[in-house]
Amino acid sequence: MSKQTIYYTLTDEAPALATSSLLPIFGAFAKEADIELKLTDISLASRILAGFSDLLPADKQVEDGLQFLGDLTASPEANIVKLPNISASLPQLNAVIKELNAQGYGLPDYPENAQTDEEKDILARYSKVLGSAVNPVLRQGNSDRRAPAAVKGFARKNPHSMGKWKKTSVSHADYMRDGDFYSSEQSTTMDSAQTVNIEFVKKDGSVELKKSLPLLEGEILDSMNISCAKLRAFFEATLQEAKEDNIMWSVHLKATMMKVSHPIVFGHAVTVFYKDVFEKYGELFKEIGVNPNNGLGSVYDKIKTLPETKQTEIKQAIEDVYNSRPELAMVDSDKGITNLHVPSDVIVDASMPAMIRGSGKMWGRDGKAHDAKAVIPDSTYARIYQETINFCKTNGAFDPVTMGTVPNVGLMAQKAEEYGSHDKTFEITEAGTMRIVDAQGNVLMQHAVEKGDIWRACQTKDAPIRDWVKLGVTRARQSDTPAVFWLEEERAHDNELRKKVELYLKDHDTNGLDIRLMTYNEAIRFSMERIIRGQDTISVTGNILRDYLTDLFPILELGTSAKMLSIVPMLNGGGMYETGAGGSAPKHVQQLMEENHLRWDSLGEFLAVAVSFEELGIKHNNEKAKILAKCLDKATGKLLDTNKSPSRKAGELDNRGSHFYLALYWSQELAAQSENAELAAKFTPLSKVLAAKEDTIIAELAAVQGKPAGLSGYYNVDLDAVEKVMRPSATFNQALATL
Amino acid sequence: MSKQTIYYTLTDEAPALATSSLLPIFGAFAKEADIELKLTDISLASRILAGFSDLLPADKQVEDGLQFLGDLTASPEANIVKLPNISASLPQLNAVIKELNAQGYGLPDYPENAQTDEEKDILARYSKVLGSAVNPVLRQGNSDRRAPAAVKGFARKNPHSMGKWKKTSVSHADYMRDGDFYSSEQSTTMDSAQTVNIEFVKKDGSVELKKSLPLLEGEILDSMNISCAKLRAFFEATLQEAKEDNIMWSVHLKATMMKVSHPIVFGHAVTVFYKDVFEKYGELFKEIGVNPNNGLGSVYDKIKTLPETKQTEIKQAIEDVYNSRPELAMVDSDKGITNLHVPSDVIVDASMPAMIRGSGKMWGRDGKAHDAKAVIPDSTYARIYQETINFCKTNGAFDPVTMGTVPNVGLMAQKAEEYGSHDKTFEITEAGTMRIVDAQGNVLMQHAVEKGDIWRACQTKDAPIRDWVKLGVTRARQSDTPAVFWLEEERAHDNELRKKVELYLKDHDTNGLDIRLMTYNEAIRFSMERIIRGQDTISVTGNILRDYLTDLFPILELGTSAKMLSIVPMLNGGGMYETGAGGSAPKHVQQLMEENHLRWDSLGEFLAVAVSFEELGIKHNNEKAKILAKCLDKATGKLLDTNKSPSRKAGELDNRGSHFYLALYWSQELAAQSENAELAAKFTPLSKVLAAKEDTIIAELAAVQGKPAGLSGYYNVDLDAVEKVMRPSATFNQALATL
Repeated sequence: MSKQTIYYTLTDEAPALATSSLLPIFGAFAKEADIELKLTDISLASRILAGFSDLLPADKQVEDGLQFLGDLTASPEANIVKLPNISASLPQLNAVIKELNAQGYGLPDYPENAQTDEEKDILARYSKVLGSAVNPVLRQGNSDRRAPAAVKGFARKNPHSMGKWKKTSVSHADYMRDGDFYSSEQSTTMDSAQTVNIEFVKKDGSVELKKSLPLLEGEILDSMNISCAKLRAFFEATLQEAKEDNIMWSVHLKATMMKVSHPIVFGHAVTVFYKDVFEKYGELFKEIGVNPNNGLGSVYDKIKTLPETKQTEIKQAIEDVYNSRPELAMVDSDKGITNLHVPSDVIVDASMPAMIRGSGKMWGRDGKAHDAKAVIPDSTYARIYQETINFCKTNGAFDPVTMGTVPNVGLMAQKAEEYGSHDKTFEITEAGTMRIVDAQGNVLMQHAVEKGDIWRACQTKDAPIRDWVKLGVTRARQSDTPAVFWLEEERAHDNELRKKVELYLKDHDTNGLDIRLMTYNEAIRFSMERIIRGQDTISVTGNILRDYLTDLFPILELGTSAKMLSIVPMLNGGGMYETGAGGSAPKHVQQLMEENHLRWDSLGEFLAVAVSFEELGIKHNNEKAKILAKCLDKATGKLLDTNKSPSRKAGELDNRGSHFYLALYWSQELAAQSENAELAAKFTPLSKVLAAKEDTIIAELAAVQGKPAGLSGYYNVDLDAVEKVMRPSATFNQALATL
Repeated sequence: MSKQTIYYTLTDEAPALATSSLLPIFGAFAKEADIELKLTDISLASRILAGFSDLLPADKQVEDGLQFLGDLTASPEANIVKLPNISASLPQLNAVIKELNAQGYGLPDYPENAQTDEEKDILARYSKVLGSAVNPVLRQGNSDRRAPAAVKGFARKNPHSMGKWKKTSVSHADYMRDGDFYSSEQSTTMDSAQTVNIEFVKKDGSVELKKSLPLLEGEILDSMNISCAKLRAFFEATLQEAKEDNIMWSVHLKATMMKVSHPIVFGHAVTVFYKDVFEKYGELFKEIGVNPNNGLGSVYDKIKTLPETKQTEIKQAIEDVYNSRPELAMVDSDKGITNLHVPSDVIVDASMPAMIRGSGKMWGRDGKAHDAKAVIPDSTYARIYQETINFCKTNGAFDPVTMGTVPNVGLMAQKAEEYGSHDKTFEITEAGTMRIVDAQGNVLMQHAVEKGDIWRACQTKDAPIRDWVKLGVTRARQSDTPAVFWLEEERAHDNELRKKVELYLKDHDTNGLDIRLMTYNEAIRFSMERIIRGQDTISVTGNILRDYLTDLFPILELGTSAKMLSIVPMLNGGGMYETGAGGSAPKHVQQLMEENHLRWDSLGEFLAVAVSFEELGIKHNNEKAKILAKCLDKATGKLLDTNKSPSRKAGELDNRGSHFYLALYWSQELAAQSENAELAAKFTPLSKVLAAKEDTIIAELAAVQGKPAGLSGYYNVDLDAVEKVMRPSATFNQALATL
């Protein structure tokens, strides 16, 4: 890292394809400020190959890009642009293995039931790439997310559609008042570094060690419990109420991220809703391996092994349930996929904002939108949605044209809070006591638990908290915007956190800043009252609220959370700049392969790279880098204003054309600026050439569309082949090469 | 006033009758603490006679009790117990005149159309007693209202019924977002004493003086305007919305107290709702004198002069309106009296709490309760009801068993704020400008107005504000309870007020007190969040919120606002102790006359007199008075606990029996206390006699019931005759006389 370097990630699918076109542009411009862009492969295929590198022939071995970047995060020089990547499900993993083996890599199959040591070793290697495997390695800092000015300005000028709210909407969020994580939380701050034990004490007094936790001094340790009986009673009560009030019932969880606790909660929702079915066929279901935590889909899947008549009988029993239950919200009414089919279909942080954006309605069996009871069992964060719904009933839908913005500073580093609880979450198998005992044998906290309860512990280290407070103050100062620390007075964890916040705030000059501590309801109400008056408010929150709010507000403000600027200022001084969200990327690749049109929008990359440049400029006193950044932002704004974002339709401007306009506008801005004559002189010729050849280049880019494009792979593509597809304009390539 | 004196008011109807029984008890007990109770007649009849005293023969002249008490308020020694009195309507006034003349007073008739000077003089004398004529004279201070501990404790043990709230309730409060008083308010604080002019500037530039206002230094002056066009458009929009959403429509105003502006607003509600009728018959209605400000009742009343066929036609036209409009809330569905019949039937400060207590429902044509759109045009205070409704939808109905209490300290003195605006309220007759010009000719504030707009000015003097701040701090200290000043950041008036509050708070030791300034929504939400956690919060508010909140919270907490302790600490140091509310008193008198059973509950008097004693005790260092007070409160608590309040049914315990038990328990408490041996010794014999003779006394009190009682009058009763009726137990009278 002798030079000023930006590490740009090669990921998967559409973002990876777009990189082939975009990186040469960034690279050419960056060179003029003595900045190098280095591409690091962290694609799913590459991560798998790296994991098996010692077993592969030398010519097939690959560098472990993720390991490299992970190591890099420890350096203050880290400057990483992170594009969306695949969080692999098992079906996806199997597909990559198949593709790689077709390419001759000779990888072992995924061992579903690993028995031998060798199989277990293989399983362990594959497990490392499953699920959310990249973020935990790279996110070595807290989170700073905001709507960039250009994006916010564009949304104000081109407001997305918002559903009208009726004052008579009956939609609401419903949550437990007792027996949930919120009401059972206990918390303490460690006064010394030590290893504590999580223990289960049986009724007979015997003690089972569940886990040992090494803790740092100043670390906050929490534990909490959901009562299975109260959870099931709550589900039943909401179902009765919804039936009586004739309102649609809809459950909202986060089974993806909260991968241990929420599938269990979801399973209870399934077995309570379909109580009659599970009571009648419970034993049979066990035999054939139905797992309600995987949703009703698991029933339909597993009964395929049964005789046709039995299948029909069970399907009829499921249909019969709908007569006695309230209407169930649908994920896909055409295909009959309900809210309870698959645990990962309805993800609260995305589904609730969508509901709130859409008049407070969810989709019904009739394919129409209806008011709904949104059931979000744990009340900790559920209450903010009810507050928002009440606000919309009272004040109407938010107006993207006039509304203010709510950036977020989130406590994320070192698996803070609930998001690090997966390995400390237990489904209780018999009545007893869950407790945490310190090194001296003192019981720090304990819960009486019953069979089926879900108990968990969470950790939050002191250094991230200190950094988060600093980040909150810094953002408040830089944006000259009020900042609210969301701290719940009635939450044990938040009260521990509050003490630290109050203490660490003293480390900073907060003179002239408006920094407040509020409960969640106060904070969201305060933010919303300001929003409708066009005012901005920084939310400084814990890890889950970070996740929820950076969907909620962007979806209301911008129509999507993909256009947010997402920065991870690393604890050690470096920075990671995350771009967009990859949810729809597979469809994009399919379209490219079929008709050579890539609709992927690289807006997130434009925004992230600008901040990445800016950061280098500040760190290395690189004036040219600062100007590159400033002009890139202006170019992005112009690109939005002139509607040069990719179209969804083949034949029209696509990702590549959009990159051309970015280069054109960026070079024009650089030519026009007067802060640095050298840069202006350098980019004036390019800006003129690009402007003069606009028609030619657009024609060249359009000419290739309409016919299939060959990528020689999906997960592990041939980069040369991709480059041919993604850089089809000789005129544009030639112009860039002149730099 | 050489002695320590309590001035006890003789008023009207049931409270006056009860006084005959209760005052001898208070008097006998008070004597032991060297306190005298003096009865001052401020009954409606007495006030009329006093007004005509110079025209009456000497033997029929009466002292002007109200004038006497009014003068007394200027003294620091004032200690007045004020019972509910009649705020006379014109029909009531005519009835009194008739009764007095039957008794030989020879009063002139009320001159509906006074022409001669003599008639005008008569009209002026009668006008003085019409409407709310007593409170403005006596309320020479701010307001301190709270639920006494005994009452609150009783409500907790014997909770009144509360309607269940559904999360799917569609009820809501709806209000203007523009064009109302709230959004047009302007305010300034006078930096010197001077007389300002309210002027109307016509389009041709000519200036009309509407009123001259002498103002004091430091006085806050406001002006505001309701746009007639926007008000009517708002009504129409709410009607369309209610029709579309199939929700009942209900308008909530305060046409009684806001006697100039609200009848006009009500009139617009009537003519917009019945638009088709008023468009078709408008001219005819004008001819026959229909005044929509008096409600639809005015139509039914005035068309009686028309031919039968025309009447039928108009009545049919009214019925036809109901097809095109949403359902209208009913005041009395049996009699077909709608929400729009009479302006004084639905009074927002009572009707909204009743709605909120009753599941958020109003009564429909079918005699059943339905969700409703509560239309409260001016948004200033309407928003607190929407906040409360949202709160109930989210958290369910309040629970009288566990809920905290919200006492009030209200800015009331010297006709503060809107409640003093009647003589400064104008319905605009043509487009122009309403403005206020100071003594130097500077325009202090102005509004462009259109025909039909309602413009008004309000005054708030500095001394009452200073006293109110002090009272707020004092109450917070005495109750050791957080106190919230309700001040709306976006209201011009409140911002002037806020400056003074912040300044005057510095005059007091607020060390250790929790005193906050909050917007109305924040304040009510804060109070409600505390209420459901069993915590108390003092509301320190302006004059209207004083009125609204001392109905809202008591009705939710206690089931009624009549049981509140209502104190007016006078600006000059004295105190007035108001009791109960007289709304149902006429029915009580009727029952007494028919079956000699008085169901009136003197609880308010018990509570007020205790505070009155306590105040004398503190002021004169009268320890016996303090003990009388303390024991009276305990006796009241016991009376509530043992269910010795009056029954509604003849033959059971009535007002008189309840007084007996008060005397019994009070004497027992005095006998049992050990702080003052003299008092204990004095009351021990009485307590023993009363306990021993309980059965005899109750029998004597019961014996008279079941047959008519003769009062020789309704408004001007023969006090001797009343005493015979109200003190029928010789045993009880004799025991009291032993003191």
